[in-house]
Amino acid sequence: MNNLQSQLEHRTIRQFKQEPIPETLFDQLMAVARQTATSNGMQQYSIIRVTDPELKQSIAEICHQKYVARAPELLIFIADQHRNAQIAKEKAGSVFYASDMDRFFQGVTDACLAAQNVVNAAERIGLGAMFLGSILNDAEKLCELLKLPPLTFPVVGLGLGYPNQSPQLKPRMANTLKIFENSYQSFDSYLTEIADYDEEMQTYYDLRNANKRVDSFSDQVVAKLQAVIDKRQDIMAIAKKQGFTD
Amino acid sequence: MNNLQSQLEHRTIRQFKQEPIPETLFDQLMAVARQTATSNGMQQYSIIRVTDPELKQSIAEICHQKYVARAPELLIFIADQHRNAQIAKEKAGSVFYASDMDRFFQGVTDACLAAQNVVNAAERIGLGAMFLGSILNDAEKLCELLKLPPLTFPVVGLGLGYPNQSPQLKPRMANTLKIFENSYQSFDSYLTEIADYDEEMQTYYDLRNANKRVDSFSDQVVAKLQAVIDKRQDIMAIAKKQGFTD
Repeated sequence: MNNLQSQLEHRTIRQFKQEPIPETLFDQLMAVARQTATSNGMQQYSIIRVTDPELKQSIAEICHQKYVARAPELLIFIADQHRNAQIAKEKAGSVFYASDMDRFFQGVTDACLAAQNVVNAAERIGLGAMFLGSILNDAEKLCELLKLPPLTFPVVGLGLGYPNQSPQLKPRMANTLKIFENSYQSFDSYLTEIADYDEEMQTYYDLRNANKRVDSFSDQVVAKLQAVIDKRQDIMAIAKKQGFTD
Repeated sequence: MNNLQSQLEHRTIRQFKQEPIPETLFDQLMAVARQTATSNGMQQYSIIRVTDPELKQSIAEICHQKYVARAPELLIFIADQHRNAQIAKEKAGSVFYASDMDRFFQGVTDACLAAQNVVNAAERIGLGAMFLGSILNDAEKLCELLKLPPLTFPVVGLGLGYPNQSPQLKPRMANTLKIFENSYQSFDSYLTEIADYDEEMQTYYDLRNANKRVDSFSDQVVAKLQAVIDKRQDIMAIAKKQGFTD
């Protein structure tokens, strides 16, 4: 395997074989997570490994994605300032500025980096992965379900297992539209710039809707930006409920 | 090389050889970035490749890290709702809900996943990497320097190049302290739990302060949580200046 092949061929896997991931392999993935770079070396994330079938089912309902409950491994990556706040309190009698937005973002970043690092490791050893941003459809309920203490917040979910499907590689827009030199570049007409991509996207078959071609990218953008899930818009209010301060 | 070796041996590289990264390799890294999973497939991030030496210098000053200016490649990953907002406006006459906090977080997540994916690729092909959360020491100034339009926000920087140092593997706390089953686990005494780790950390030599042992982890936590950089606490206010709405 070419060094970068698994990364260049990344695709989301949503259907897994029933075969569990051997515990030794799972431990290796968690060893990789452990070595991930973190902001200031502060390790401001935690992982909840969801093994209880009822809890998996409840999370699948939050996600509005039945297949979430069937993932052999389901991990929820959370931003975590609780642990360091407790360490500071025990050591120096104060949690200091553990709750501010800077720390909140550091935790979010740490959680995302660890999640992607685990995905890279999983794909290197023949596993498939799906990210679940949809856990945020109801972050408040998820906090309750996982008994998340103050100064923690769920960031992203991850389903892992042996792939039971071979999806087509999903087309992406050209890098000329998103990699710029020295300053941001806007375009006069984005629809002109993405015309080929819009067309290419319609040759892609999403296995979630088998045999049905997907919309052009620009139509997808319009549909997504119109769709509002109230509880997702409340994300900062829920973060504040979890003790983070603006 | 074992499949996961480069990930298990991740360490931050801050000193690079002057040798540039060949453009063909750089293009491969960007091809990997392009294939990264993104929220809803919406690709809500962009990358600014900083090649102008004066601009690199200005960013190094924001970071308070001189070595930033010497990185052969300096990339700034930004959350980007500007592009999709423009697409929606052109296609359907409205940007809809492009500015809400849900979309802001999707952009932040997309930017982080792409950055970690590039780091994994870089390390697989023998390059070294340093994440730069310190670009947020003055996010407002960075927005100006990079001419970031509304609905974009800088998330994390990345320095890349051929390593010119071999740092010791930095100790991490045990996974038992951050990986939990089904619900979050708090501990009665964190200082007891991390006693060995506190000790281990003091055997680590940070090459930034050569020949000087570092503080215990708990002392580092206290020092970091006490340190306030005003402009970093303003991160949400600056995001709002960039057009995001609470």
